[in-house]
Amino acid sequence: MDDFSDADVAWLMDRAAAHREGSASRVVPPPVVGLLFLETSLRTRLGFSAAAARLGGWPLPVFEQRHSAISMDESVAHTVRALSGYCDVIVTRLPVPLNSDVLPLRPRCPILSGGDRGPAGEHPTQALIDLFALRNDLGGAAGRSVVVVGDPRMRSVVSLCRLLVRQGVGEIRVLTVPGLLAGRQPPGGVADRVRAVFDWSDAAGADFLYVAGIPHEAVSLEDRDRLRLTPERLAGLGEGCVVTSPLPVIDEIDEESWADPRLRAFEHSDDALFVRMALLELVLGAAG
Amino acid sequence: MDDFSDADVAWLMDRAAAHREGSASRVVPPPVVGLLFLETSLRTRLGFSAAAARLGGWPLPVFEQRHSAISMDESVAHTVRALSGYCDVIVTRLPVPLNSDVLPLRPRCPILSGGDRGPAGEHPTQALIDLFALRNDLGGAAGRSVVVVGDPRMRSVVSLCRLLVRQGVGEIRVLTVPGLLAGRQPPGGVADRVRAVFDWSDAAGADFLYVAGIPHEAVSLEDRDRLRLTPERLAGLGEGCVVTSPLPVIDEIDEESWADPRLRAFEHSDDALFVRMALLELVLGAAG
Amino acid sequence: MDDFSDADVAWLMDRAAAHREGSASRVVPPPVVGLLFLETSLRTRLGFSAAAARLGGWPLPVFEQRHSAISMDESVAHTVRALSGYCDVIVTRLPVPLNSDVLPLRPRCPILSGGDRGPAGEHPTQALIDLFALRNDLGGAAGRSVVVVGDPRMRSVVSLCRLLVRQGVGEIRVLTVPGLLAGRQPPGGVADRVRAVFDWSDAAGADFLYVAGIPHEAVSLEDRDRLRLTPERLAGLGEGCVVTSPLPVIDEIDEESWADPRLRAFEHSDDALFVRMALLELVLGAAG
Repeated sequence: MDDFSDADVAWLMDRAAAHREGSASRVVPPPVVGLLFLETSLRTRLGFSAAAARLGGWPLPVFEQRHSAISMDESVAHTVRALSGYCDVIVTRLPVPLNSDVLPLRPRCPILSGGDRGPAGEHPTQALIDLFALRNDLGGAAGRSVVVVGDPRMRSVVSLCRLLVRQGVGEIRVLTVPGLLAGRQPPGGVADRVRAVFDWSDAAGADFLYVAGIPHEAVSLEDRDRLRLTPERLAGLGEGCVVTSPLPVIDEIDEESWADPRLRAFEHSDDALFVRMALLELVLGAAG
Repeated sequence: MDDFSDADVAWLMDRAAAHREGSASRVVPPPVVGLLFLETSLRTRLGFSAAAARLGGWPLPVFEQRHSAISMDESVAHTVRALSGYCDVIVTRLPVPLNSDVLPLRPRCPILSGGDRGPAGEHPTQALIDLFALRNDLGGAAGRSVVVVGDPRMRSVVSLCRLLVRQGVGEIRVLTVPGLLAGRQPPGGVADRVRAVFDWSDAAGADFLYVAGIPHEAVSLEDRDRLRLTPERLAGLGEGCVVTSPLPVIDEIDEESWADPRLRAFEHSDDALFVRMALLELVLGAAG
Repeated sequence: MDDFSDADVAWLMDRAAAHREGSASRVVPPPVVGLLFLETSLRTRLGFSAAAARLGGWPLPVFEQRHSAISMDESVAHTVRALSGYCDVIVTRLPVPLNSDVLPLRPRCPILSGGDRGPAGEHPTQALIDLFALRNDLGGAAGRSVVVVGDPRMRSVVSLCRLLVRQGVGEIRVLTVPGLLAGRQPPGGVADRVRAVFDWSDAAGADFLYVAGIPHEAVSLEDRDRLRLTPERLAGLGEGCVVTSPLPVIDEIDEESWADPRLRAFEHSDDALFVRMALLELVLGAAG
């Protein structure tokens, strides 16, 4: 998340808003966008593919079968280096940390993280998408009370907390179960702004409720039930509360909850297109 | 098939003809076309991809691995809803019925069926491609004698029969084996126009012979032999008979039969591009 | 390799140079480029995809699952024939020889080999990419001393040797191990220009060192060590020697060797884009 300066974030939000209003004129030539996804992803991969197309460019997806029993593969760094000669920008989703172990010394084009793994794993573009939702629905993050529901170790939560603190968020509560807190501290620099809570009554007063999701088999079925968004739990939130999720969700949101107009996850997914267009433009040098 | 009105069908045929002649000017902005294919398909998927490109747009293919042993997937409805925010139109090929169980309540763009499954499974775009072949080679379906060879339960056969009856076809004979008739009635509304026959001599006099194909292991090898198109059986057809197939075929058409100029399956596959371009334009609102 | 005349090769080199300098104006309409890759490939597939995009066109990738236990597939010839109706050109990578067994009688568009298999298997587009490297770095192949390291049976080596001899190469030494020579003669017509050597001291004096790679498990680990490019072995080469590889490499090039500026495999991979653009233009009729 730290790779984006405050000026970058401000530019991105304004630029995404211009795309959303349809008032953005072209600022970069149509780009060839490499999509190196070595981990499953639907939204990030297709979202950046659509963003490439909406900029007049070309998505170039790479699904490489790796680590199969009968092959010795070239290194990820070599793959990225070669691909960087074909593309104007590469978006990556890797099952390992995106660092100098996997990045080539001198790529020929910018690399944009679409999520990585490891102790410092982040998902910064998702956090920017979430901030855009806050901006559009609530005027921004400053002073707001945000409740994150689910697994605080998820990379999208880590990046979101970091970004919200930089944006002057009022407070962040993480509604979770004790088992998901084990062995992991809140991300550095934001620990004093993040507080764990364990009961839906502690979500009251939230301006923005973020259903982060829970990895399959990360917790018991009882704990999954405990964290599920239901109409009853929605009833405990304020009328102006905005509820969202980076998606996908399986059972983290009860089907009946979708009828509630405060749940705006798909609308935010739609708006994500504009943020991804702005992100591609930013790394292509459009921000000047 | 009923989703296309007679006016739609007429517009599609004229529009496809204009594309075929190269006289069609652009009527829709270059579209982003999502291709959600959860079942194997070569022709429909690549054909609509090429059609998107020929309209100046972008194909956006989705091959999602689903129902794997170790994952809990989001619902198809959620996937379609999210994808509909990125695309101008989505073409689907699903292993289940395309109905409200899998369609989101409010998709953001039109959904075009590229074939679905279930008791009411259809393949309407293929039927329109077949009608375009009839129009180009025989002036249309009205009054024509059509013989379908193979499995009458196939979705392409169901859609074709429905469409041909609407177009005033003279008669439809289905050349099949008794085992393939078990447990299935001809599609509703067309039963009185469709007659099952069991011998190639009953194909005599056909204007249009449609080799529908037979699913692998659906019948015995003897029955496959019985339904195979061979030079001898071609010899029993009239000189002006047009023979086609929606493809792929494995052994349903004997290799030697391909030398016969009456067999025009690949030419019709080529012309399918123009029908698919017109279909994308129709659902994008071009028909006004 | 013989499918490209000397005039074709000369045109390709000049055209690729024009693309590299950014001085090439458009000579073909934006093409739809089918990519029928039935064998794994990263560089050839993505390289031609990027080339299609850089020409303003559309890559149309086909990854068909074939020969699965539960399906009977249509023939490759049928697939190519159908695809040829959607595309302006098809690039193929096949696990079998690209000959009349797999090519349709009358494809609707040109077919460009991206590598095939069998006793006469070749990889002609890679050889043209290698020749472009020779031209840019050494002024051409004429009179040059070329050393190929690795498996002389690889299709890229076969095509390169054929092309270099046509271009008046001075000599070709193949630095290999005896086990890799068994059962295979140098490609016809070039046997008298190719000499096998077995020691790195025999690479001295090379103008162009080509690390061809060694298939996994083709030789013992000791033999892999014997053929690996290391800083010590690089030290034995002349200052002006250009070292390259068609990539990918796993352990054929020691990681430390990459710091040597004479090793230019990635730069040549970058330049390959321009050769592939020129190749698409050539088969689309631009040279006429």
